[in-house]
Amino acid sequence: MSVSLVVQKYGGTSLSTPAKIRRVARSILERKAAGDSVVVVVSAMGNETDRLYDMANRVSKVPPIRELDMLLTAGERISMALLAMAVEDLGGEAISFTGSQVGIITDSRHTNAKILEIKGDRIVEGLRQDKIVIVAGFQGVSREKEVTTLGRGGSDTTAVAIAASLGAEQCEILTDVNGVFAADPALVAGAKLIRQISYEEMIELSSLGAGVVHPRAVEIAARTNLKLVVGSSTSKVYGTIIQEGSGMEKPLVRAVTSDVNIGLLTMIDVPRSPGSLSQIVTTLTDRGVSLKFFFHGAGREKCDLSFIVSDKDMKKSDEILSAISRRLGAKGLARRDDVASVSVVGPGVGSSSDILRVLFDGLEKEGAHIEAVSTSELKVTCVIGQEARDRAVNAVAGAFKLLDARKKSTSPRKKKK
Amino acid sequence: MSVSLVVQKYGGTSLSTPAKIRRVARSILERKAAGDSVVVVVSAMGNETDRLYDMANRVSKVPPIRELDMLLTAGERISMALLAMAVEDLGGEAISFTGSQVGIITDSRHTNAKILEIKGDRIVEGLRQDKIVIVAGFQGVSREKEVTTLGRGGSDTTAVAIAASLGAEQCEILTDVNGVFAADPALVAGAKLIRQISYEEMIELSSLGAGVVHPRAVEIAARTNLKLVVGSSTSKVYGTIIQEGSGMEKPLVRAVTSDVNIGLLTMIDVPRSPGSLSQIVTTLTDRGVSLKFFFHGAGREKCDLSFIVSDKDMKKSDEILSAISRRLGAKGLARRDDVASVSVVGPGVGSSSDILRVLFDGLEKEGAHIEAVSTSELKVTCVIGQEARDRAVNAVAGAFKLLDARKKSTSPRKKKK
Repeated sequence: MSVSLVVQKYGGTSLSTPAKIRRVARSILERKAAGDSVVVVVSAMGNETDRLYDMANRVSKVPPIRELDMLLTAGERISMALLAMAVEDLGGEAISFTGSQVGIITDSRHTNAKILEIKGDRIVEGLRQDKIVIVAGFQGVSREKEVTTLGRGGSDTTAVAIAASLGAEQCEILTDVNGVFAADPALVAGAKLIRQISYEEMIELSSLGAGVVHPRAVEIAARTNLKLVVGSSTSKVYGTIIQEGSGMEKPLVRAVTSDVNIGLLTMIDVPRSPGSLSQIVTTLTDRGVSLKFFFHGAGREKCDLSFIVSDKDMKKSDEILSAISRRLGAKGLARRDDVASVSVVGPGVGSSSDILRVLFDGLEKEGAHIEAVSTSELKVTCVIGQEARDRAVNAVAGAFKLLDARKKSTSPRKKKK
Repeated sequence: MSVSLVVQKYGGTSLSTPAKIRRVARSILERKAAGDSVVVVVSAMGNETDRLYDMANRVSKVPPIRELDMLLTAGERISMALLAMAVEDLGGEAISFTGSQVGIITDSRHTNAKILEIKGDRIVEGLRQDKIVIVAGFQGVSREKEVTTLGRGGSDTTAVAIAASLGAEQCEILTDVNGVFAADPALVAGAKLIRQISYEEMIELSSLGAGVVHPRAVEIAARTNLKLVVGSSTSKVYGTIIQEGSGMEKPLVRAVTSDVNIGLLTMIDVPRSPGSLSQIVTTLTDRGVSLKFFFHGAGREKCDLSFIVSDKDMKKSDEILSAISRRLGAKGLARRDDVASVSVVGPGVGSSSDILRVLFDGLEKEGAHIEAVSTSELKVTCVIGQEARDRAVNAVAGAFKLLDARKKSTSPRKKKK
């Protein structure tokens, strides 16, 4: 496979020590030696971002977001410079640039900026000089010349946006696994590696807990029809290709994913009144709570409104919903943080009664009581008790034939919470 | 004392932990509350620069200097953002800027750039908004938009250059001691604090091992006639004022200083030939060796040439001088790294036979054999064996009355090498 211009993104785990940085440098040089032009986008090293956050929280109760961006952007600056040094030490030619230097122009929402435009003159100049161009991910600069960061999935987003703006043949997201799996290999022994997946399916999968590529990045790839490849930074297995889907297909579960970092809040017996639901939802989102999804009970006089939020937003959401509950005259607010979501993703899964039946039967057989269900054309998500999560994911992976026949005997890695 | 615009520089030791950063923030806010406009220049936190260097040396045998500058500038970026956060947390308004953002324009010599110009628009704008403006020391940007660092004494130099360009009333170098002492308090119990000193004396003192202010910074202050104040970042003792000297004075030893981080290399029996000395000196300086000073033996047919260099340049200098020795037909090269320099500084000291006699007698009485002497109008430096350094400095401090009468009983702090 000969590609003329490729953008590679390496995550923090692949860059967490000087030795790993040298390994990545070697792998970039091999790619270059094969005849490709290479632009590399890097995240901060390992736990560097956490280290910086921790210091910020020690000097300030609520760190101002402009200064937080100044601080955090030091992380990629360090990894990009070290990677460029390693490439040069191994005999290559490299040049590193910050987001600001290559003109990654964003809006001015600090800590959560959106990319508006990529100028990229210095990238093009570096490539013209036949250099390996290394760019800091996650960061940009506003039109007011303030340094910004892109928030979650920032480095993936930088890589895809640069690849799209340069018209690269493909963008490779290189990480510590071989690609996108049909189920989390840490939970399900012998989970299948997905060879091809559509943008839409990948967006659903990423949004529902599969952490390999951020959905924001996949959305940009989809809009610009850029081929995304997910692979391993060390084993050189480029396992999964994400590209335009192959049109209408019979309903098919492509993958199962799960998320334990969620909580469930339910407002009980809310009197119906026009606009109250939209008021609740906008109050939550205005205060920065990202709603995983919400659903409300059937059309009775009073209904229950349930909200799934991230663990980290539980406290804030609880306060907001408690206040609104009192104002609306609801009976109360129930809280559960011992829940998990289990989702299946694939074309047509949300409207296939066959798939829903197999899924629900599979969960019930494992004693996983289904608290809530949310569907779309491409996914079905069930909220269950956290303690049943591992059994449930394995049962679903088995039921939908997501296991690699060759690997069935492998035992799962130690599970993480 | 009411000053309308002051530039303060805080060193890495004063910013080495989140708690210390908060302490500095409080001290800045008190200064602001007293009615002054404040620009703050910061170094990297504690050992951050060493940490970054160490990683560079682990990814690369000879880190390319452009990338080294990219890497090291992350250090001040971290400290400036954390300090701005701390100021805001304590109720102040602050804004941090990199060297590039405030237009500290340098030449393009990476790792050792010189400041050409300071644009400073964003500093002025920040001050106009009544904010505390925090600027990263040690760093700038070339006209080719490459990030540069200023090398040794970089943050002091940034502070003085900004103060000069803004026309500040004074520039304060705040550190972990109360000012400039007549002898190192770590070596000499009860050393006197110097209340006033001229630019020229301070330049000599700094060049000879007194580490409080870098001579480059003092030189800029001298050229622009900017008042420099050296004081403590914590105790708010602004101990020493450095400004224009008061003209002709009778010879007077103002301070004694010493340096153990030096080595002595002597080329033995070098046949005289025109231009050889200048050739040797330029070869050393071209290869980046900064010569502390050198001297050559009396006018015989063959002479000994001795060079004092930094410890860290010993190996390189040894190689260069060995090669030149062979070429010139010298008898050999002698190496000593167990030496130290002891210097006295003050107006007219170098041409006062009284002072020279007291100095030499004082050293000899302590058994310090004088290996070499170098003088200028403002200083006399003696090279002695390292083991006699502590005794020698105390003897000289006593002989020239550099002890604070009130403090004579204090015992010296543990000595550092």
